[in-house]
Parts: sequence; structure tokens; C-alpha cells
Amino acid sequence: MTRKLLTVDDVNGCWAIMPTPSKPGASDPNAVDTVDLEETARAAEALVAAGVDGILSLGTFGEAATTTWEEKQAFMRTLVETVRGRVPVFGGTTSLNTRDTIRMTRAAREIGVDGVMLGLPMWVQPDLATAVQFFRDVASACPDVAICAYANPEAFKFEFPRAFWAQIADIPQIVSAKYIHTAGLYADLNLTKRRIRLMPLDVDYYAAARIDPDACTAFWTSGAVCGPAPAIQLRDLVSKAKKTGDWTGAKKLTDRIGQTYRTLFPNGSFKDFSVYNIGIEKARMDAAGWMKAGPCRAPYSLVPEPYLEGARESGRQWAKLAAELATERAE
Amino acid sequence: MTRKLLTVDDVNGCWAIMPTPSKPGASDPNAVDTVDLEETARAAEALVAAGVDGILSLGTFGEAATTTWEEKQAFMRTLVETVRGRVPVFGGTTSLNTRDTIRMTRAAREIGVDGVMLGLPMWVQPDLATAVQFFRDVASACPDVAICAYANPEAFKFEFPRAFWAQIADIPQIVSAKYIHTAGLYADLNLTKRRIRLMPLDVDYYAAARIDPDACTAFWTSGAVCGPAPAIQLRDLVSKAKKTGDWTGAKKLTDRIGQTYRTLFPNGSFKDFSVYNIGIEKARMDAAGWMKAGPCRAPYSLVPEPYLEGARESGRQWAKLAAELATERAE
Amino acid sequence: MTRKLLTVDDVNGCWAIMPTPSKPGASDPNAVDTVDLEETARAAEALVAAGVDGILSLGTFGEAATTTWEEKQAFMRTLVETVRGRVPVFGGTTSLNTRDTIRMTRAAREIGVDGVMLGLPMWVQPDLATAVQFFRDVASACPDVAICAYANPEAFKFEFPRAFWAQIADIPQIVSAKYIHTAGLYADLNLTKRRIRLMPLDVDYYAAARIDPDACTAFWTSGAVCGPAPAIQLRDLVSKAKKTGDWTGAKKLTDRIGQTYRTLFPNGSFKDFSVYNIGIEKARMDAAGWMKAGPCRAPYSLVPEPYLEGARESGRQWAKLAAELATERAE
Amino acid sequence: MTRKLLTVDDVNGCWAIMPTPSKPGASDPNAVDTVDLEETARAAEALVAAGVDGILSLGTFGEAATTTWEEKQAFMRTLVETVRGRVPVFGGTTSLNTRDTIRMTRAAREIGVDGVMLGLPMWVQPDLATAVQFFRDVASACPDVAICAYANPEAFKFEFPRAFWAQIADIPQIVSAKYIHTAGLYADLNLTKRRIRLMPLDVDYYAAARIDPDACTAFWTSGAVCGPAPAIQLRDLVSKAKKTGDWTGAKKLTDRIGQTYRTLFPNGSFKDFSVYNIGIEKARMDAAGWMKAGPCRAPYSLVPEPYLEGARESGRQWAKLAAELATERAE
Repeated sequence: MTRKLLTVDDVNGCWAIMPTPSKPGASDPNAVDTVDLEETARAAEALVAAGVDGILSLGTFGEAATTTWEEKQAFMRTLVETVRGRVPVFGGTTSLNTRDTIRMTRAAREIGVDGVMLGLPMWVQPDLATAVQFFRDVASACPDVAICAYANPEAFKFEFPRAFWAQIADIPQIVSAKYIHTAGLYADLNLTKRRIRLMPLDVDYYAAARIDPDACTAFWTSGAVCGPAPAIQLRDLVSKAKKTGDWTGAKKLTDRIGQTYRTLFPNGSFKDFSVYNIGIEKARMDAAGWMKAGPCRAPYSLVPEPYLEGARESGRQWAKLAAELATERAE
Repeated sequence: MTRKLLTVDDVNGCWAIMPTPSKPGASDPNAVDTVDLEETARAAEALVAAGVDGILSLGTFGEAATTTWEEKQAFMRTLVETVRGRVPVFGGTTSLNTRDTIRMTRAAREIGVDGVMLGLPMWVQPDLATAVQFFRDVASACPDVAICAYANPEAFKFEFPRAFWAQIADIPQIVSAKYIHTAGLYADLNLTKRRIRLMPLDVDYYAAARIDPDACTAFWTSGAVCGPAPAIQLRDLVSKAKKTGDWTGAKKLTDRIGQTYRTLFPNGSFKDFSVYNIGIEKARMDAAGWMKAGPCRAPYSLVPEPYLEGARESGRQWAKLAAELATERAE
Repeated sequence: MTRKLLTVDDVNGCWAIMPTPSKPGASDPNAVDTVDLEETARAAEALVAAGVDGILSLGTFGEAATTTWEEKQAFMRTLVETVRGRVPVFGGTTSLNTRDTIRMTRAAREIGVDGVMLGLPMWVQPDLATAVQFFRDVASACPDVAICAYANPEAFKFEFPRAFWAQIADIPQIVSAKYIHTAGLYADLNLTKRRIRLMPLDVDYYAAARIDPDACTAFWTSGAVCGPAPAIQLRDLVSKAKKTGDWTGAKKLTDRIGQTYRTLFPNGSFKDFSVYNIGIEKARMDAAGWMKAGPCRAPYSLVPEPYLEGARESGRQWAKLAAELATERAE
Repeated sequence: MTRKLLTVDDVNGCWAIMPTPSKPGASDPNAVDTVDLEETARAAEALVAAGVDGILSLGTFGEAATTTWEEKQAFMRTLVETVRGRVPVFGGTTSLNTRDTIRMTRAAREIGVDGVMLGLPMWVQPDLATAVQFFRDVASACPDVAICAYANPEAFKFEFPRAFWAQIADIPQIVSAKYIHTAGLYADLNLTKRRIRLMPLDVDYYAAARIDPDACTAFWTSGAVCGPAPAIQLRDLVSKAKKTGDWTGAKKLTDRIGQTYRTLFPNGSFKDFSVYNIGIEKARMDAAGWMKAGPCRAPYSLVPEPYLEGARESGRQWAKLAAELATERAE
């Protein structure tokens, strides 16, 4: 396979994160072959058709923790075969150690992914040197794979401090980051010398684009699989604003997207959200009705009902927004 | 005293946070009367002369924890008498409980401060309801004092989640916040309905102003007491950019300010910084040479030497930047 | 005042921790003079009459955080005057810094307490050196007061690691510790060279006494104010067992005491308990009916109802046990 | 294979935890086949010869996180073949999810282990219900394997609260626990109805045995692979004391063992230790000289030199104690 290695310049626009759709009964600890590959193909095709610019997968709510290696491969194969190079596809190869991640990353590349969304081994809390060395080792062992650094502090027991971004900036394969600390976005952009596309969440994209329109050209969205329209339109409104200088539309849409998030975070807390991340995101998607995320795999299938209901309401609100945007566009 | 209560519209520009300057020997656990009131007056006058728009005091590195109530009153009195209403002055009345804070806040108002920078009681970790009720109770008991919500998660064992900002937005006296989670700045602006001036750190002001030029009109800076020029000039360049649409200058200065921070955070970590916050900030100020912050009060006077050296280097870099800006301006 | 300084050999038996009883309306943020001194005197007298060996006060559920200095003094004065030297009385002088604690400790000694239960300043997380120096400074400035080190990791942001116990062992005034890490009890006993009486909770006393019968001769109990009988009888059964070698009775009573704790900790978690510590302990006491703990002072008066109900049930169970023990004794 | 399922009554005495010995070069992220099987066999044989009562493996310092599945199988196979049923052997099958753990546990059973030391999936922090269900699901899917619950709060993001022990007590295959919260040992014994052998660390065994001589009959030790003599002799002295009632010898040896731990924990802190657990334990073993633990596998091979030196000193002290005991015995 001689596909070109992605660079930071290839990471732009709306990057949808897909769940790993599950069949009925997937919560059973004895279930096998739990991935709904038909729904995977259907949703991937629909995302491409809707105009997303890239697909990320197999992070936290993508159940990288709870899918087997066989399931991961089947899922990535379906993604790659469905998308057929029309947009970049990133798999996920986070594991408990460097060597397993290298092996999985090479296999994912064989399957045909363009890159991997990569978090840190999390059995033992990594210090800064360990975290940096991990990314360096994987990149060095897998020179033909792009990497999206997956910066989730709750999952990986790591603060992702400023020094981390400065130190990984010279690893050429790290082309992007799933980034949630918009706090230090501008500082981190400087520290990475803009060699890494720091992708904020959809609802933070407007803000990021205002801060640095040239460097902030992409965002990640789990909302896209609740209906792609709001995310696609956000991308377009921000692009337009960058040209015209009139940001009113982008801002207004951001506010409407923000409204859909109000009930998503239990007690409004990221820490509480993190404990039930998978169940919350999948309930949101299923309630939105655009795709079938399906039941959570063991052991993460137990979520307090009030949190699920907040998630469902968030999904319904996103779906409603998508419908409204369609109507408005038609008018 | 019938001074007008500040509103959110009165909080603009460059808000310097002053330390509580200490006399030699102030680290001694038996020291009394440790505040260097002459240096307090000198520095406050110099800040006003340099053009700052407001003065905050008695937060963490302002040693609210380690100064006695008598010292706090003497310090605030000197501040108020020196500044003479030319810019708003905020004291600090964080304590271990609601009633002591109310008593101190009323006394601070008698002394003549315009407002208080107010953190949460931190013996017991507050839940959301407790945190909101605390601010509500203090505001209600002290109706003639403005409040700057002091949102420090490490100090106050509280995440300051989105729901917090939404719920305090209807307390009219909360006019501003010392804010460090630029992460959620835009979302939090919406949740507060822009009724609270969320003030980022100097180096994050450019980013905030890009996100929402109308709502983000003020920042806090501890760098101002390392030499006010960079902070003042940052304020002016951002103001100019908001009018002209040309942000190049503001961005460039932000990058230069960012360079001075490189050695300030031990291991690049906010968590580690928080353990030695006071010693680090005071070492930085003393090394910059613009004012005498003096020794730390007990029990926070023990700081590992490498952290102190990083802090001093940060101070020297800020001072160097201030000198360069003076030269450049002269040219 | 020339009372003899307590030594570790004076700390034995059952040490009751009293709440600071509050009058109706004490939750009001504008309340003044909230301590119910009559109930304070009544309960202290009853504890002495019941045979407790010492009284600790003004820790976390003793509302050291939320009582004013005037209230603390009045409360300690009432304690001292009621107890009249029949058993040692410890006040509490934890504050935000070394100097305020020294001042308060001297005043408490003037009032006549034998010692203080002392936690760490908790605005800034202390490192090991800071924590040790704090105790050293207070002890050195108040040479005629005994100190009970109050080792609460959640309140004071400090792990109280092994090295801490080793390093404070040479401070002669530290005669005891309110200790909850029975984990390392034996190791910590060695590190302190048995110069500090490490006092476990009532329900852990049997275990501690088995580990080191000579060194483990005292425990703390908040249950005593739910009715002293179980705590007093526990003390006596352990003493008897140390002589006879037959631990059956001590063990059996410990198990019955353990049953009363089953509903006290929300979700069985110490971390969750710590957030609502005050409200939970006071609800437990009020439900037990032996004394009136009264409402919680601001800002800690908001506690989820299910947690309160668990606390009340725990109190009722303790009271029931006390009643059963009285009947059994009578038989 | 029709071997009898172990019960709690089969878990007694000295349980050595072995590292997974590594060949030179094992730190290389591209290394394959890193397990030194000869050293594995040699050390296992020597442990059995020395008289240990059971062998645990593949926990944290056993590098369950960083060995591949192939390596784990080869290691367990060597253990089983070497030990030949003379003592029970536990493998380790902690993974990122329930299904992988079930698959690995079944395979480990096929290989011939008697049980598995089992921690929780740790990508997402489990709540209480999730943690309990995980153990229930694995036990139910693997009815012929004994389980040692591996209660490490830092690794598994879980407090292992009292309610956890109460709720898993009815899972018959959970016969033991690698337990570090001696804090609540007695309470947890009650909650488990003594159906689970709670095994403390060697240096805590004396204390545990005093608390409940009947229920506390086993301990775990990583020191055994620094030279088995101290651990074996501790076991025998405690057994003797239980019969004679004279605990002097057991206590004295415990104190000597305690001395060897003094430099093991960086800053005396379990939290800091946890970050470098693997490197610290392996350095200790290599310095003791009884077996070759070898280099750490990626990504956990970077440890600050002062921590390593503390670990080595601890190993040398253990070895010295082992030598002294041999001499004393000879005398």
C-alpha cells in the first residue's frame, strides 16, 4: 500500500467521531461478534454523503476499551471499504502498552486506515517523560501512519500539560489532536508551532476559529452522528466568516448547538460525565435517531437513569436543530 | 459612604493583581504587622500611574490565607487611600465560612473597597448547591459591594462547572470573575448571559477577545507588578484591533508574553504550580525588580529551589520584555 | 495557669468528640451567637458522668470551619468550666495559617483547655515539609499546650504519609492523633516510636488493640454523643481482654457497633461522606436523641435527603444498641 | 482438566508475587518474546523449595499491562509446569473489558493455573455497580477458576469501598484479595463474612493476625523474591504465636522487615510510588540479587534515578536481613 502520509494540512473541516454500532445483546459478557457492520457501513456512507471531512473512531465512546481486537479489525475494514478514500479514516489503537499499540497500529494500516486516534496506556499513571516517549515510540515504529493525539485527562490519568504539546511537536506523524482543553488553545498552538491541528469540540469551534483562524481549521463532533447538518453548516459558516469577516451566523449557530448540550453533562460536570461517557453518548445518539449506536458493551452498560434521560434529551434537541436547519435552508 | 455599586460595564481593561508586600522576617511564625504598607502605597500609585484599570488583591498569592485580619484591613486601607477612587479596588474576604466572609466584606466596604475577590470556604469540599448558595448569601448580606468570583479549582476543591456559571448569573453584584478555564469561555459567557465579566489571564486575553470582542473586555494580570508595560500595551493593542480589525500586533505581543511564562509552571503543570503558587509568584515578582513582594508568610515559605529558579527566570523575562517595549516605543 | 502538660501516657481510653451544639436558626448566614451553651454544658457533664476519658472538639463536624472565633471561645470556656479538670479537654484551633493558629492556641490555653485538635491550613495543598514545619512552629510557639494531630486527608489535602509520622515524632507536645488510616497503624506506630497515641475510631479500636495492646490504649468516638454506653463498654471490654487474653466480648461488641455504621457512609464511600460530613454527623446525633446537635452553620447546611436518612438510621441504630446494652447489663 | 476449585480455606501462609522476568533489551518498544522463561522456572522452583504457600503473578509490577498475550501465556505455562501443583499458582487476566478478561481467564485455566489475580478495567472509572458486576460476570463465565480480587485504587480508579466487599462476598470463586487497605481490615472481614481471604502485605501481616487470628491466615509478599527467608520465617513465627500466645518474635521480625521498606516509597507516598511502581519494584529485586527481574517493558521504563536508588537500597536491606536470619538460625 503506498498511500500518501497525511500532514497537518490535510486535517480540515468537520471530523465526525463514529461509535462502534452494536447488535442487540451486545451488553452480554458472553456476546461475540457484537459489531453491527451493516449499520457501520450505512452510517459511514451517510456521513461521507453529508459532506464530513474525516472520520475518527475507536476512542472512549467508540468503545475501544470494550471491543475485541477481532471486532476492531472488522469495524475498521468496513469503514475503509465503505469510505474508499473519499475522506481520511482514523481507527483507534490505544492499548495497555507500547508494543501492543505498535502491533495494532501496523495492522490497522494494513487494513487501510489513514491514521489512528491514540491515547495513552492507563494502568499506571504516566509521567511527562513516559507520555512523550510513548508517542515517539509508536510514531517511530509505524512511520506510514498519521496520528491524532487523543487528549482525554480522565481516561488517561494525565493532565496533558503545556510541556507535553511542546515536546511532541517535532513528531511529524502527529498531525492532529482531539483536544478538549480550549483553555490553553492559543498557548498550545504556539508550543506546537502549529504543526499539530488541535481540534476542539463542535461547540468550541467558533471560539477557536476566532482565536486563530489560520491554525484552527478543523473540529471534532460526536453530534454529527445525531444528524450531520448542524456540524456541516457550522463548518461552512465559519469558513464563510473567515472570508467575509462577518461572524454573526457562525456565532448564532454555535449558540443553538450549545443549547442542545445543556442536559448532556450530569450535574454539568465533566468528571461525572467521564464515568458514564459511553452510555451517555450512545443514549444521546439512539435518541436522536440518525443512527443506531446500540447497547454498551461490558462492563460499561450500567448508567443511572437520570443521566441517560439527560443524554436522550440532548440527542432529541440536536435532532430538532438538524430538522430546523433543513427547513430554514429550504425556505 | 454612598459610592455607586459597580456593574459589569465598569469592568474593562487591565486589572492588576497585587501581592501583599511583606517586610523582612515575615516568614517567621511569630512575626506581627508584616505588611510593608509603604511598598503597598508605592506600587499601587505606580500601577495607577501606569494606567491599569482596576486592582485586585488578597487572592492566593495575595496571601489572603496567611495574613491576619488586622493586616488585611491595614493593607486594604492603604490601597483605598492611595488609589483614591481613580480606579476600582477589590479586596479579598475569602474565609472558612459564610458568616466570617459577610463580616469581613462589610468591613472591607467600610474601608472603601469597591468590591471583593471572593473564593469559596474550602475546609469541606462544596457541592454545586453549596457553592451557589454561598455566593448568594454573601451578595444578599452585602448589597453594596461588587463581587469578583474567584474561580480557582485547586484552592477551593471545586470544578466550577458550567452549571455554576448559569446559576450565579442572576446575582447582580457578581460583576466579574477571575477565570482560568478559558476552555469553556464561550459556553460560560452564554450561560452567564454576559452578565459577568469573565476575566482571563493576560496571555489568554487575545484569544478571549477574538472569541467574543464585545463580552471579553477585561483581563487579570499578575505580570503587571513585574512591570506594567506589557499588560497595558496588550490592552491597548487589543482595543485597537477591535476597531481596526487588524489583530497582528495584539497577537505578536501575546506571543512575547507567552515566552515569559515558559519556566513559571513546575513541570508545565498547573497542579504542581498550585502547591507552590505563593512562593513562585512572589519569587517571580522579586526577580523582575519592579516591586518588592517580600518573603512568604507561614506556613507557605518552603519551595523547592528549582521551582523558585524557574519563577525568577520568568520574572526576569517579563522585565526584559517591559524594557524592550519601552525601547521600541521610544524608537 | 500552671497546669501540667499532658503526655502521651495521659491519653487513654474513650475520647468523645463533641459537636458544637447550635441554636435554632443557626443555618442563617446572618445568625450570631449560634452556640447552644446550655446544651454544651449539659452534654459535657453527661459525658464525664458516663465515664469518658477525654473530650475532643472543634474538628470538622465540630464546625471549626463555620463557627466564629467568639463562638469558639464561648464554647471552649463552657467546656472547661463544666468539666473542671475531671478529664482532659481539647479545643480546636485549625485556621488558614500558622500565625492565626498560634494566636488562637494561646488564647485557648488561657481559657483552660489541655490541648488542641489541630489540622493543617488547607487553602494551598501543603507538601510534606510544609506540613511538618507547621506543627513544629505551632508547638514551639505554644509550649504549654498538648496537640492532637488531626489527620483528615480530604479536609487538609494531605495524604499524611508515613514520612509525616516519622518526622513529627520528636515534637514532644504532639501527644495523640485523630487517626483514620488504620491501614498503616502498625508501621506508623513504629515510625512515631510510640511517642504519639494514634487513636482509631471506636469501631477500629478492637483491631488496633489486638495489633499493639501496649501502644493502642485510646480511641476517638463521635458515637459517644449518640449515647455513651457502647463506647464506654467497648473501652472496658478491651481493657479486660488485655488482662485476661479473652477477646470474645470486645469483638462481639465491635461487630454490633459496626452494624450501626452500615448506612452512615453515602455509597459506602469516605470521599462522598467527606463532602457532607457535618450534616451527616449532626443528623445522626439528632436522630439518636442523646443530645441536640442542632442545625448546620452556613455554608454547609445543604445535604441530599437520602444521605441524611442514612445518617439518621445510623443514629437510631446506635441508640438502640445503647438501650440494649443497658438492658443486658441490668439482666 | 478436573482439578478441584480452590476455596478460601486453601489460601493460607506466604503468597509470593513474582515479577515477569525480562531478557536484556526488553525495554525496546520493538522487542518480542521478552520473557526470560529460564529465570521464571528457576525462581518459581526456588520459591517452592523455600516453602512458599502460593504464587501470584501478572499484577502491576508483574507487568500485566505491558506483556503481550503470547508472553503471558508462555509465562503462565512455565509457572504451571515448574510448580506442578505443589502450591497454587495464580495468573493475571486483567484487561480493558469483561469479554477479553473472560477469554483470557478461560485460556489461563486451560494452561493450568488455579486462579487469577484480577483487577478492574480502567479506561473508564468504574462506579460501584460496574465494579461488582464485572467480578460477577467473570466468575459466572469461568466457574472453574478461583479469583484473587486485586484491590489497587490507583491502578483501577476505584476506592474499593466497604460496600464493594459486602457485595462481592457471595461470589464463591473470589477466595482471596490482594489487599492494601488494612485500615478497614476488620470491618471488611465482617462485610465479607470471612468468605474472602483478605491478604495484607508482609509487613502488615502481624497486625492483621492480631486483629483476627482465625481469618487472617495469609499475606502477600513481593519481598519473597528478594530472598524468601524473611517472609517464610514471618509466616512461621505468626503461626507459632497463634498457638503459644507469645507474639514477641513475630513482632520483632515485622519491625526488621519494616526497616527494609524505609527507602522504598518516594517521599513516603503511596501515590508517588504508584507512578513508578514497576520500575521501583524491579530495581529493588535486582539489587537484592535473589532473582533477575530485568528491565521494564515500554512505556514504563523511565524512572527518576533517586527513586531507583531508594528502591535498590530497600532491596539490599531485605537481602541483608535474609542473610542475617540465615546466620541467626545457624547459630
